Amino acid sequence: MKFTINRNALTTQLANVSRAIPSKATIQILTGLKLSVSNEGITLIGSDSDISIESFLPIDDETLNLNIEETGHVVLPARLFNEIVKKLPLENVTIEMNENFSVTVTSGKAMFNIVGIDGDAYPHLPEIEADKRITLPTASFKQMINQTIFAASNQESRPVLTGIHLQATSNYLTAIATDSHRLSKREIPVDINETQLNFDAITIPKKTMTELTRIIEDDQTLFMIVAQQQVIFIADNLTIYSRLLEGNYPETSRLIPTSHQTEMVVNANEFHQAIDRAALMSHEGKNNVVQLTVDNAVVELSVSGNEAGHVAEIINTKTAGGDDLKISFNPDYMKDALKSFGDIAVKVEFQSAVRPLLISAETESEIPHNQLLQLLTPVRTH
Amino acid sequence: MKFTINRNALTTQLANVSRAIPSKATIQILTGLKLSVSNEGITLIGSDSDISIESFLPIDDETLNLNIEETGHVVLPARLFNEIVKKLPLENVTIEMNENFSVTVTSGKAMFNIVGIDGDAYPHLPEIEADKRITLPTASFKQMINQTIFAASNQESRPVLTGIHLQATSNYLTAIATDSHRLSKREIPVDINETQLNFDAITIPKKTMTELTRIIEDDQTLFMIVAQQQVIFIADNLTIYSRLLEGNYPETSRLIPTSHQTEMVVNANEFHQAIDRAALMSHEGKNNVVQLTVDNAVVELSVSGNEAGHVAEIINTKTAGGDDLKISFNPDYMKDALKSFGDIAVKVEFQSAVRPLLISAETESEIPHNQLLQLLTPVRTH
Repeated sequence: MKFTINRNALTTQLANVSRAIPSKATIQILTGLKLSVSNEGITLIGSDSDISIESFLPIDDETLNLNIEETGHVVLPARLFNEIVKKLPLENVTIEMNENFSVTVTSGKAMFNIVGIDGDAYPHLPEIEADKRITLPTASFKQMINQTIFAASNQESRPVLTGIHLQATSNYLTAIATDSHRLSKREIPVDINETQLNFDAITIPKKTMTELTRIIEDDQTLFMIVAQQQVIFIADNLTIYSRLLEGNYPETSRLIPTSHQTEMVVNANEFHQAIDRAALMSHEGKNNVVQLTVDNAVVELSVSGNEAGHVAEIINTKTAGGDDLKISFNPDYMKDALKSFGDIAVKVEFQSAVRPLLISAETESEIPHNQLLQLLTPVRTH
Repeated sequence: MKFTINRNALTTQLANVSRAIPSKATIQILTGLKLSVSNEGITLIGSDSDISIESFLPIDDETLNLNIEETGHVVLPARLFNEIVKKLPLENVTIEMNENFSVTVTSGKAMFNIVGIDGDAYPHLPEIEADKRITLPTASFKQMINQTIFAASNQESRPVLTGIHLQATSNYLTAIATDSHRLSKREIPVDINETQLNFDAITIPKKTMTELTRIIEDDQTLFMIVAQQQVIFIADNLTIYSRLLEGNYPETSRLIPTSHQTEMVVNANEFHQAIDRAALMSHEGKNNVVQLTVDNAVVELSVSGNEAGHVAEIINTKTAGGDDLKISFNPDYMKDALKSFGDIAVKVEFQSAVRPLLISAETESEIPHNQLLQLLTPVRTH
């Protein structure tokens, strides 16, 4: 194995695959990255056995300045190799494997010799049936993930809730996340050709979705392939493999309330800031709870009963109406929910002090199946 | 106590005094900040008993929008009060003390009520004899601190080495820091009027110097007052009080070598980068050591004998000469020393493999008493 490549291009792709590489692992070889050189180009692979990320640097990409002299493969210590490549003095780097999987990295007058491992010892990635891929609308798919992922559970006691649940119909996708205190639901229109559709619903680990949103650029074409126990995302020369979460995802559609007794319309951003202020005081107390009262169409946020003091603020509403109400909730959950809407007017609908409240955009999207809903369970304070 | 003030101005000064406030303290009241209102203005004080920072916001500063209705003083929980002021909705804030040291903070429709403590319970700051102040050249004084502070010790076993040692003569100041493995020394010209000079040498805690460089702007006039066991720095309306370190600072002048057997001139920045690369490999091994050899005027850096691999690089030198040499050192200490020079040519002088090496600017400053020296003790590897 011997090749020369542009150092910056290699650094960028090493950073991408390294997102999957754990700093510690019970399977020692997974702390390394696999470097394979064929006559077509260079393949980098990182994996933590749940997620694997593969990056291909093709010989015909002229920006890479890639010159392959000899093929082969090796596993290198990922962190050390990344840092070395990042700090090399010149624009190009030469990488050569010597006897015993020892690898020489040369750039200018700097010469590193790194102890590697036989590439054959690295686990194999699953084969892909590439004919059943769905093309995703990259930007809105990433937005959908960001608007729901925070509601997924961190508790490993119910693993299936730690993922994002994706449901497919013929012309839209729905993402749902819930930790049983709150629920986020977003639909996006997706043109799914019937013949290519090979799943109804899958649950993808949160970590996969986070890495995906970080790696994939909005202007890349993104494909999804669903296989047995696996989901695969492909964008240009990057491939992300992930296991799926097993178990039955709860039937959430019946949780979403269809009626309400009290309603208000507020600017999501302003309301977020007011809750942020109130949370300063709720964080000082034992129960992290903020109270909201609607009294004759006047909405007030407050925290009281803490040792450190109390806080109250009248909220600017566009409209407020319905039954008077006194309800308590976790301000941090409410902030997450409001943040997902950005700086727009939202409708908050309350059934009662003990039933979930519902947040949605005041003005429905003109695009069908393009809706965002946030559901929040109140905290019972007496 | 009641006043109204511009929220941003208050936030800035709260941040300054908060630098001295510990998040936890055995003396509970020190986690608070003291707020005193007189007819002349507002005084904020934070302290951890080693350092105290006082900020005065005068009534005649029109940018403060300060309106005092009632005088008084109180101690408030520092972190909570800072966060509240930072997040208030409007430009101005009204602060009023009610019965039992309870304080109301109002801005727009947001109203906080914070439980405070009687201001009389807060420790008093020392009185200052203001007639013996020295005017410091702010920018070069701060530079002097930054170029030496990293060499001060972190070991509390010899407390006096954890400070910066300042020596005064009639027309210059010298700063020295050493942790006994390395030594930094910088002189700066200071016009010290004989009658105002009231100290020969003091040792100031590292933390005081760090906070000083962070708070004071280069264009502010900086005064220093040395009193019994105390040093006081004053810039505009900010006053920093600090205890001095007790104990005899070691006599360091005899440590600085006056002759050398080997010498090289290198660009500090380029040499720093080469050491940074070599350190990638030395950090992998048990001994964090880099070896430098001078062989027939060729200088090579290397790390070998690690499990992970080895590295070698020929160094670009402007000149190199003298006896051949093989010397080992801690690369992190060497990086600190080189960084203090920036991107200039430096002279590195070696006596032998076991005696300290000396780094100084290749071209001496045109200004008298404006010199920087870095001394580094080698690591004996056999």
